[in-house]
Amino acid sequence: MQRNPISATVDFDADGVQHGFLKLPHSHDASAWGSLMIPVTVARNGDGPTALFTGGNHGDEYEGPVALFDLAATVRAEDLSGRVIIVPAMNLPAFQAGKRTSPVDGGNMNRVFPGNPVGTVTEKIADYFQRTLLPLADYVVDIHSGGKTLDFVPFCAAHVLADKAQQQRCVEAMAAFNAPYSIMLLEVDATGMYDTAAEEMGKVFISTELGGGGTARASTVAIAKRGVRNLLRHAGILEGAPEIGETVNLDMPDGRCFISSEHAGLLEPCVDLGAEVSEGDLVCKIHDPARTGVAPVIYKSPIDGVLTARHFPGLIGMGDIVAVVAVRV
Amino acid sequence: MQRNPISATVDFDADGVQHGFLKLPHSHDASAWGSLMIPVTVARNGDGPTALFTGGNHGDEYEGPVALFDLAATVRAEDLSGRVIIVPAMNLPAFQAGKRTSPVDGGNMNRVFPGNPVGTVTEKIADYFQRTLLPLADYVVDIHSGGKTLDFVPFCAAHVLADKAQQQRCVEAMAAFNAPYSIMLLEVDATGMYDTAAEEMGKVFISTELGGGGTARASTVAIAKRGVRNLLRHAGILEGAPEIGETVNLDMPDGRCFISSEHAGLLEPCVDLGAEVSEGDLVCKIHDPARTGVAPVIYKSPIDGVLTARHFPGLIGMGDIVAVVAVRV
Amino acid sequence: MQRNPISATVDFDADGVQHGFLKLPHSHDASAWGSLMIPVTVARNGDGPTALFTGGNHGDEYEGPVALFDLAATVRAEDLSGRVIIVPAMNLPAFQAGKRTSPVDGGNMNRVFPGNPVGTVTEKIADYFQRTLLPLADYVVDIHSGGKTLDFVPFCAAHVLADKAQQQRCVEAMAAFNAPYSIMLLEVDATGMYDTAAEEMGKVFISTELGGGGTARASTVAIAKRGVRNLLRHAGILEGAPEIGETVNLDMPDGRCFISSEHAGLLEPCVDLGAEVSEGDLVCKIHDPARTGVAPVIYKSPIDGVLTARHFPGLIGMGDIVAVVAVRV
Amino acid sequence: MQRNPISATVDFDADGVQHGFLKLPHSHDASAWGSLMIPVTVARNGDGPTALFTGGNHGDEYEGPVALFDLAATVRAEDLSGRVIIVPAMNLPAFQAGKRTSPVDGGNMNRVFPGNPVGTVTEKIADYFQRTLLPLADYVVDIHSGGKTLDFVPFCAAHVLADKAQQQRCVEAMAAFNAPYSIMLLEVDATGMYDTAAEEMGKVFISTELGGGGTARASTVAIAKRGVRNLLRHAGILEGAPEIGETVNLDMPDGRCFISSEHAGLLEPCVDLGAEVSEGDLVCKIHDPARTGVAPVIYKSPIDGVLTARHFPGLIGMGDIVAVVAVRV
Amino acid sequence: MQRNPISATVDFDADGVQHGFLKLPHSHDASAWGSLMIPVTVARNGDGPTALFTGGNHGDEYEGPVALFDLAATVRAEDLSGRVIIVPAMNLPAFQAGKRTSPVDGGNMNRVFPGNPVGTVTEKIADYFQRTLLPLADYVVDIHSGGKTLDFVPFCAAHVLADKAQQQRCVEAMAAFNAPYSIMLLEVDATGMYDTAAEEMGKVFISTELGGGGTARASTVAIAKRGVRNLLRHAGILEGAPEIGETVNLDMPDGRCFISSEHAGLLEPCVDLGAEVSEGDLVCKIHDPARTGVAPVIYKSPIDGVLTARHFPGLIGMGDIVAVVAVRV
Amino acid sequence: MQRNPISATVDFDADGVQHGFLKLPHSHDASAWGSLMIPVTVARNGDGPTALFTGGNHGDEYEGPVALFDLAATVRAEDLSGRVIIVPAMNLPAFQAGKRTSPVDGGNMNRVFPGNPVGTVTEKIADYFQRTLLPLADYVVDIHSGGKTLDFVPFCAAHVLADKAQQQRCVEAMAAFNAPYSIMLLEVDATGMYDTAAEEMGKVFISTELGGGGTARASTVAIAKRGVRNLLRHAGILEGAPEIGETVNLDMPDGRCFISSEHAGLLEPCVDLGAEVSEGDLVCKIHDPARTGVAPVIYKSPIDGVLTARHFPGLIGMGDIVAVVAVRV
Repeated sequence: MQRNPISATVDFDADGVQHGFLKLPHSHDASAWGSLMIPVTVARNGDGPTALFTGGNHGDEYEGPVALFDLAATVRAEDLSGRVIIVPAMNLPAFQAGKRTSPVDGGNMNRVFPGNPVGTVTEKIADYFQRTLLPLADYVVDIHSGGKTLDFVPFCAAHVLADKAQQQRCVEAMAAFNAPYSIMLLEVDATGMYDTAAEEMGKVFISTELGGGGTARASTVAIAKRGVRNLLRHAGILEGAPEIGETVNLDMPDGRCFISSEHAGLLEPCVDLGAEVSEGDLVCKIHDPARTGVAPVIYKSPIDGVLTARHFPGLIGMGDIVAVVAVRV
Repeated sequence: MQRNPISATVDFDADGVQHGFLKLPHSHDASAWGSLMIPVTVARNGDGPTALFTGGNHGDEYEGPVALFDLAATVRAEDLSGRVIIVPAMNLPAFQAGKRTSPVDGGNMNRVFPGNPVGTVTEKIADYFQRTLLPLADYVVDIHSGGKTLDFVPFCAAHVLADKAQQQRCVEAMAAFNAPYSIMLLEVDATGMYDTAAEEMGKVFISTELGGGGTARASTVAIAKRGVRNLLRHAGILEGAPEIGETVNLDMPDGRCFISSEHAGLLEPCVDLGAEVSEGDLVCKIHDPARTGVAPVIYKSPIDGVLTARHFPGLIGMGDIVAVVAVRV
Repeated sequence: MQRNPISATVDFDADGVQHGFLKLPHSHDASAWGSLMIPVTVARNGDGPTALFTGGNHGDEYEGPVALFDLAATVRAEDLSGRVIIVPAMNLPAFQAGKRTSPVDGGNMNRVFPGNPVGTVTEKIADYFQRTLLPLADYVVDIHSGGKTLDFVPFCAAHVLADKAQQQRCVEAMAAFNAPYSIMLLEVDATGMYDTAAEEMGKVFISTELGGGGTARASTVAIAKRGVRNLLRHAGILEGAPEIGETVNLDMPDGRCFISSEHAGLLEPCVDLGAEVSEGDLVCKIHDPARTGVAPVIYKSPIDGVLTARHFPGLIGMGDIVAVVAVRV
Repeated sequence: MQRNPISATVDFDADGVQHGFLKLPHSHDASAWGSLMIPVTVARNGDGPTALFTGGNHGDEYEGPVALFDLAATVRAEDLSGRVIIVPAMNLPAFQAGKRTSPVDGGNMNRVFPGNPVGTVTEKIADYFQRTLLPLADYVVDIHSGGKTLDFVPFCAAHVLADKAQQQRCVEAMAAFNAPYSIMLLEVDATGMYDTAAEEMGKVFISTELGGGGTARASTVAIAKRGVRNLLRHAGILEGAPEIGETVNLDMPDGRCFISSEHAGLLEPCVDLGAEVSEGDLVCKIHDPARTGVAPVIYKSPIDGVLTARHFPGLIGMGDIVAVVAVRV
Repeated sequence: MQRNPISATVDFDADGVQHGFLKLPHSHDASAWGSLMIPVTVARNGDGPTALFTGGNHGDEYEGPVALFDLAATVRAEDLSGRVIIVPAMNLPAFQAGKRTSPVDGGNMNRVFPGNPVGTVTEKIADYFQRTLLPLADYVVDIHSGGKTLDFVPFCAAHVLADKAQQQRCVEAMAAFNAPYSIMLLEVDATGMYDTAAEEMGKVFISTELGGGGTARASTVAIAKRGVRNLLRHAGILEGAPEIGETVNLDMPDGRCFISSEHAGLLEPCVDLGAEVSEGDLVCKIHDPARTGVAPVIYKSPIDGVLTARHFPGLIGMGDIVAVVAVRV
Repeated sequence: MQRNPISATVDFDADGVQHGFLKLPHSHDASAWGSLMIPVTVARNGDGPTALFTGGNHGDEYEGPVALFDLAATVRAEDLSGRVIIVPAMNLPAFQAGKRTSPVDGGNMNRVFPGNPVGTVTEKIADYFQRTLLPLADYVVDIHSGGKTLDFVPFCAAHVLADKAQQQRCVEAMAAFNAPYSIMLLEVDATGMYDTAAEEMGKVFISTELGGGGTARASTVAIAKRGVRNLLRHAGILEGAPEIGETVNLDMPDGRCFISSEHAGLLEPCVDLGAEVSEGDLVCKIHDPARTGVAPVIYKSPIDGVLTARHFPGLIGMGDIVAVVAVRV
């Protein structure tokens, strides 16, 4: 396997707080000898577990970057037992552009793992996480939100894993994060995900969806900040116990949770996030945007549950997920 | 003044419900003999006042189009006394593209009034409203939301006018619309606005901001639908009295209401829409997105009031409005 | 009125054949001190009438440029009595890009007359024709075809004019051009057309539509070449009589000639150009391109006549002209 | 080999007519949880052979989609013995954009076989045909036309194959399709073609080129519709014998059939499609589009034959095929 | 005349050094309530003359912005007698994009004077200079370089003016600036220039061209910095006499100074900037970039003089200025 | 390994001078049956060594193409002993676009070796050099310059190689080329380079950097032309000895030679190319382009040496190389 071209300007083994960059050479039309400079902070105080935090896996999701730039600016080595590695904007070009995917190569970071050291820019970053950063970590927390095209009730998630002991550790970490909702997440397509990469290495891995629409709110930023510190306490890297409040436990038993559109048009949502819906309840209408006087198409819930996710933009395309209905546990 | 090239496929003077188009010839690379087909519905039952409803003045604002496509699909002439004209997607190319402005000519519909019959596509549409549709109307309701870059508490708005009797009629219409918030709106820049065009003709004019972010919610769609029917009842076009619930009355005494950014970066909102803020309260932080370990810049409220609007995207630019604080009356 | 910035590198008053440029200074990002160089040929032999030929008024129409680059390369001054001015690519940037309109400014040359010497690039060219070239001419021939989005039976056209003597001279020139079809053309919108500019100066003006689809055919190029020489003979600039064969005379009595689409989709033409159609005959179907199993929408001819023009691309948009049916005289 | 992510909403083994989609998950900036919905119809009546029809392999070729959306809308299961699978728009994103290749990934569907289940969108579709649909079929018919940049005499084609018995079955199917021209086609480059994939599985495979220029004509649509039904009769899926009229048999003995350009410029075609040409005959001229007064470059036919294909746009680039001359058999 | 929408965050009449912005409201797709923030510094110490310095009139010219951001960062009010107004990036959007013209509206700042308060963004900035900033100034210095497409010997320039006393003051200011070359500049096209606007108000106006190619050099930055301070001393705003070294005086007697290309291709320069050339000397060759084995086209100098400017990019277009030859005085 | 689709229209084994093309079939939206036509000249006179010259490896570097189109137009077979192969525009699409990388596929020619015969267009060209042209050559000369984003002192370069005898032959060739500077070049990243491909085959390989900024100068073109002829003499292909003048020998001992930026902004260079710098000397400043009154960031030289390369554009990004300091030998 070839060497990854990324070099870090920080020393992951040194004590103290260091701010630097993951520097990835990138020769392109606007700079023949340019580099991507992905910000990174490492804070370490002696031996102990390592927590690896990422935001900006998708570039239009903001609770993660806000909470992690904040953590990086305020973390103090003397408060730690062990190590914290913080990458607030994992897919830097996507984050800078405010887009889900990289404007450099179109790469969706969460579909290219395990990456490739001689591939695209996005694949090179993935390979660096796969072969350099993930091996350093015990706890891996990847903070997502819905981005510009989805919106979610704020949840922390774990996955059903073959190794039930590992799954249990992930569920405990999810509980410690303590978002308003906690969910056993069914992925649309798990191929190429960072989640899978971390889980296959046996790490304690949790992710989140803390809102969406391409913005952050004061309330969801607070969930992210609290969850991050809760996880550090749970891992024993920060002292003290996690602050635990109420959470709603959800499950996604099968593919019927996903309501998908077979029409393009103007979306009229009929229930809002967090609402309880029963099988057969109206979820949305899709209006023909080209002419007046036409009855809209109607979509209903196939199961009883909680409206957990929804398409965000006012227009919807054929094949888009309209909504997700998850089941209270 | 030259003839406007738009022709309507409906007869504004006929009784009954007609669905058709405002047809605007548009010769371009993809169609030498093409036309824009702007959907329009006119419903009339004998003499009586005329209400003119518009959505999609900006193409990424959705409560208006949803409520008006719905109204057009369900209105019955026999329920009316007078006339309703419905244009759910005023700036059709912008609406189809999901953008604030027209992809055809970059036109911001609400900055080009009174328009121009031999100008750009956007200016031709404006001229058609200025010289053909507005003169037909007694009540003019233009339903806005924040679009992809702003978010608002849901309000109906009137303006301070030189003609106090006209202003009073507008305020009464705003009260009848009965959004959760009602505001005497201070415009950033009133030049070229549809509002000004309607008001200068002496019309009863109200507008709204019912949410934002480039989406619609079930709750805000309900506000729009109820407000539209309330206005029709207030005007006597529909029978019965408006359904009136609580509203919060707001005022914008001067330019200090607008908090504007002098930094670009990652926006961390510190209060959410509808929150009460006091002078000096933290409103938001702006983080440097290029490196970790830097303290964010801080913005505070210059007055006491209610957080009425905010920048929506997770990234903010220099000169963007961060937030608007309005004053309870 | 300000001076037009275009300078010609040829002397329109000199005898002989000169090849040169209409040079239009154009400062832009790719050349701070650049110019557009519009090819022009002037051939003169003593006093006599002047014929002004143009192609490339729209940049994706090819019979004109082919016939006129050919004429320019082969014209001999000693064969002439009078003067020929040839501009094969009037809207040069559009012609170079193979587009109807100018990639520089979006200008549709045939909608911006009389132009503007301090306006856009397209307007400056129009102004140069309006104030410099048209005044030099007695006969004005503007060779069009359908371009990438329309296709026509090959015709030469004259317009109904208020000055019936002028109209008669135009009709005679059209007859001399002797395309397979000759038509009294009804314009969709005559505002800003080069035709109107020439006609209002009292010139003998004819135009053509000699095919379309963004290509030229050997057969239609032959029509153009023969027509151009026929016109020169008719004007007495070349010796001899026009070669006259059969032509079908068509008229367009009113707007019903234009069949326009209210649906977007996949176009299935049911009759081809030149076919005789009767009122009520099927002209085309439009299929929903998003799903199978849906019956197509059907369009019929509103009058008896000849299928004279049609939408060319396989996909059609709302508001596009599907077809034109003209009436045999 | 990994699982293909496409799922069909139809059951290929059920009797009756079903309209549905090949649903391909596609996460992108405009829809994080979106899908491509490729329309498909399957019609089955008991056991019997299977014919697989495709259009839109290249997205700017229209006879196939028109004939196949028509077939899908009118096919009746009770008329069949066996099965018909119809995919009118194989490269859906290209078809929706009216482009040869996919706007999603630039993929040319007919160059990416056998595809890749974890590759680009175009490669995923190819893999689904390779591993799911082709194995279901006995007869494979891929309807092409010239698209926006080529034009053809309308032909049905078979290839020279190593397995002469298979070749004979293909030639018989070509004869049954009975287009005005029938050709033993020499491919410019057979790597990655759908044709090759089907032939290598031993299928009876025919393709067509039924016109071009990015449009369809009533006459060429009729050829496609008749050919499709003829093939079904030939295969015994529909009752009755094919309707057989005249066809011109052509052959392409070697690479001299292709006339290729070494100049860019304005194309003047000197013969039209279907014309008989002799070795040395003028085929086209290429004019310098930058200046007048320059003699054009001349291209001549290297062999005797029929002008079978030609470059369509009015401008031609260096290296473009100007024309194809095939030989009457 | 309507009010200009720009507001300054600095007080031009206050003593001391202030750094702020010219704030121009700009509603667009990426920010409904956005503004352009054009940096400005004003430094004042009591009464006295005012010098107005601008850079970034064209956004890809760098000596001006570098010298003026430096001046703004280092100017001390106590060193002044009078006032200095510094706008280092006049066409801010162009400067941010590194382009000659504005990416917002395509505006070339130096072609839109006197501007328009309700026009495009570029026109609004021009109007603000025309009606607000120029009237405050006695000395106006606009620092240009060649930008990405031109390169110059470093000169300071004055124009031939009708008012010979004003011309003399400008020539004295040019001499005080003391660039290596001083030139009486002949403009290609003076319409819409900032220069003309300032000169028509009777101001002492000088401009420069200090290099080019879209870069700055240490040597040319030094010329700019020294020239700016020399001008302030000349005006009496800074104490002391200008530092005066050698300068070469040049004149441009007529249009023959400009050598313009009638060919597109690969440019081979045969003399470098500053070289002495004689009439008939080879200035450059243009190679056909499409094929080898073709002799290049040759351009020669029409006069004796100094190579003062040249086309910078390696490729050249038809109509581009190849070079300028000015005459030693 | 699959066959490369490129065919040459010249015969590399024939005596005499031939001008032709490397023809690469390329099916795309603008030409279904198109080809890239890469100009090539081969000149041969009997047996003897072969020199392979390339320019346009990066499309915005001009000394190579100018010198090589010139060489191709003037080379005479009778002057040679052996063979010269000349490809002046190796990455033709990039060269035509004036860009470093290919507009077709984004390919950076010097990062994709050894290429791929079924890959992208750029990879196909690389594969053709790897498997067809390089094996024909004894001497390989790849003429680079800095392109639009870098500028260099004019040097010829060799690399440190494992095979010291081969390295010595390369150093001798570099000395024969005799540019003003001669350097043992340390590559930022040697993966995928043409250099490495040639060196691994044991060829005598030299490259150059002869200037930059996206232009050529008379002086640097002269260096390229002389160097090319010097190399041919050194190889014994042309008669006579190389013309040898002075050269400055440079070395790059380690990575400290590269000064890289951690800030984006307006670049103020403080020393020019060729200057002697000492450790700690100021090399450049970077100004904040968003506001005045802020002190610039400062970059200093980490070693003693000669300023050998620098970032060219006036704006600089994070991670860009600011400058290279090499050490005199």
